[in-house]
Amino acid sequence: MSETQTEISQLGEFGLIDRLTDGLQPVNASTLRGVGDDGAVLDYKETEVLVTTDLLLEGVHFDLTYVPLKHLGYKSAVVNFSDIYAMNGRPRQITVSLGISKRFTVEHIEALYSGIRLACEIYGVDIVGGDTTSSRQGLVISITCIGDAPKDKIVYRNGAKDTDLICVSGDLGAAYMGLQLLEREKVASMGKTDFQPQFQGKEYLVERQLKPEARRDIVEELDKAGIVPTAMMDVSDGLSSELLHICKQSNAGCRVYEDRIPIDYQTAIMAEELNMNLVTAALNGGEDYELLFTVPLHCHEKIEKIKGVKVIGHITRQDLGCALVTRDGGEMELRAQGWNPLAHE
Amino acid sequence: MSETQTEISQLGEFGLIDRLTDGLQPVNASTLRGVGDDGAVLDYKETEVLVTTDLLLEGVHFDLTYVPLKHLGYKSAVVNFSDIYAMNGRPRQITVSLGISKRFTVEHIEALYSGIRLACEIYGVDIVGGDTTSSRQGLVISITCIGDAPKDKIVYRNGAKDTDLICVSGDLGAAYMGLQLLEREKVASMGKTDFQPQFQGKEYLVERQLKPEARRDIVEELDKAGIVPTAMMDVSDGLSSELLHICKQSNAGCRVYEDRIPIDYQTAIMAEELNMNLVTAALNGGEDYELLFTVPLHCHEKIEKIKGVKVIGHITRQDLGCALVTRDGGEMELRAQGWNPLAHE
Repeated sequence: MSETQTEISQLGEFGLIDRLTDGLQPVNASTLRGVGDDGAVLDYKETEVLVTTDLLLEGVHFDLTYVPLKHLGYKSAVVNFSDIYAMNGRPRQITVSLGISKRFTVEHIEALYSGIRLACEIYGVDIVGGDTTSSRQGLVISITCIGDAPKDKIVYRNGAKDTDLICVSGDLGAAYMGLQLLEREKVASMGKTDFQPQFQGKEYLVERQLKPEARRDIVEELDKAGIVPTAMMDVSDGLSSELLHICKQSNAGCRVYEDRIPIDYQTAIMAEELNMNLVTAALNGGEDYELLFTVPLHCHEKIEKIKGVKVIGHITRQDLGCALVTRDGGEMELRAQGWNPLAHE
Repeated sequence: MSETQTEISQLGEFGLIDRLTDGLQPVNASTLRGVGDDGAVLDYKETEVLVTTDLLLEGVHFDLTYVPLKHLGYKSAVVNFSDIYAMNGRPRQITVSLGISKRFTVEHIEALYSGIRLACEIYGVDIVGGDTTSSRQGLVISITCIGDAPKDKIVYRNGAKDTDLICVSGDLGAAYMGLQLLEREKVASMGKTDFQPQFQGKEYLVERQLKPEARRDIVEELDKAGIVPTAMMDVSDGLSSELLHICKQSNAGCRVYEDRIPIDYQTAIMAEELNMNLVTAALNGGEDYELLFTVPLHCHEKIEKIKGVKVIGHITRQDLGCALVTRDGGEMELRAQGWNPLAHE
């Protein structure tokens, strides 16, 4: 351990928490009391309260050989914000629980926490509590996010209707390709001391994997345009998987057009390099944290005007099933081949 | 794996969640939407929202060689409820995140979850969400609890005033002694196939460790008596540690009387068997989940009438420090020797 590293046992739980949360200033009116008591106190007299939670485990959700701790902290927070935006809400508070194994120093955890704090600063979210403990194995990060929305603006997964347009923000598959790239460079680096990873021309893929953003901008644009989607989710497990959730819960079917799926050119180049099917990667890659939503047909013109949103298909009657319409006009049944953390142990 | 055990990979994440949450019926009016979307939707127009969270890790917080999974689930939920009661609130919702390593079957996780569901049923709490994933690191349980209280009834740690009475519910040190007993029997059982643990006459200790309860009854009694404590915490890290928190945050000192600390006779017998100092165990043992609170002096008569509450001392000016008054009238400085999960890795 270098001289600039401090062992966590020197500070203890309360000392570490004090250090991590030093100078936190709530920015939301709904935060009455944050860190420092048995619990936080929030005030939501005007809006409904939204709650979502994510558990991230070392070796399952992240690999610290190529994920910098600050990025990991940032991403851990952002994926929770994304879930709140996916309900057409605004994230307001998070609690942060950390399980820390012996190999981490105070400085490591400060780096992780600085990423969480940066994400909170950018998205206007308050850290209001958490739990910090030792872990026997790897790093454990559990974040719960509280957000809000007026009751009539909350968007669920089950409101999609026949003829609704299916829209998606940004582009898909890049985070997955970024992961493939990082894994490839990790393998290539093994046993080498002077290894320089090759990311030239693929910076976007790496950034999408290591530092995703939540689409607050899209939620705000929809609001400005006076559009309340009929159903919405964020794309964390892959477009196919999310679309099937919306269709199942809405008792509907869908048609998605292969040639309309937004894909960045870096994603396409990487797929070619890896000899992978590009559309499969875009449909199933996951971790895009883009918004997938449906709007009534009459919103077509308004939607077309929102930058960064693409109409990729439409909702159908349930008996028509869920299918991808390929470039040659054929139909392929949509299947969830997305990341399932419990199926492939 | 026996024939009645189902591998989790057979169900996958969504299949497992469906099975665990099957038949959940919200009982709180504040629960608008529970499991099944990107997040839960809650309504807290009349009261403030309280949020608390706990992260429990295998090998740090629990040892599955002697903790039954159902008990573990029950306790995991109850310790969160306890934090909400400690703010004079009522728990209403929880989210449950689980990290599950390969050695667990669907039936194991059902047992764990049945304990969580039982606790929720008994305390009137709704399970509204969570996250379920695989773990490389043993079982991970992260629960966030949301509760509520009217603004003027919320009790913080920082309101204790000079001359306030210090009160504690139930008795202290039993959960710690239960842990010592379970550890002793674990060691005794090693390498033996026909081992029967010896718990006769010590059932209370085992129960306090394995199946603690949150003191809803005390919070309700205080309410009925028209008492709002000036400060309150639950005793999870040990009486000394909690009392020092209250005094520090309230800028106060305290005197606690050794002969007034409530201790069950089973705790006393066990301490003698183990040749441990009884008062040290009661002051620092932790995991009692009793309520420690302060009330103005004029509440003395009312407090005396509440069954299961004992006045153990009083708050003083800060410059008088925090001390235990021993049976012989001497004073010993109170120190936090309670469980610090990061100091003794």
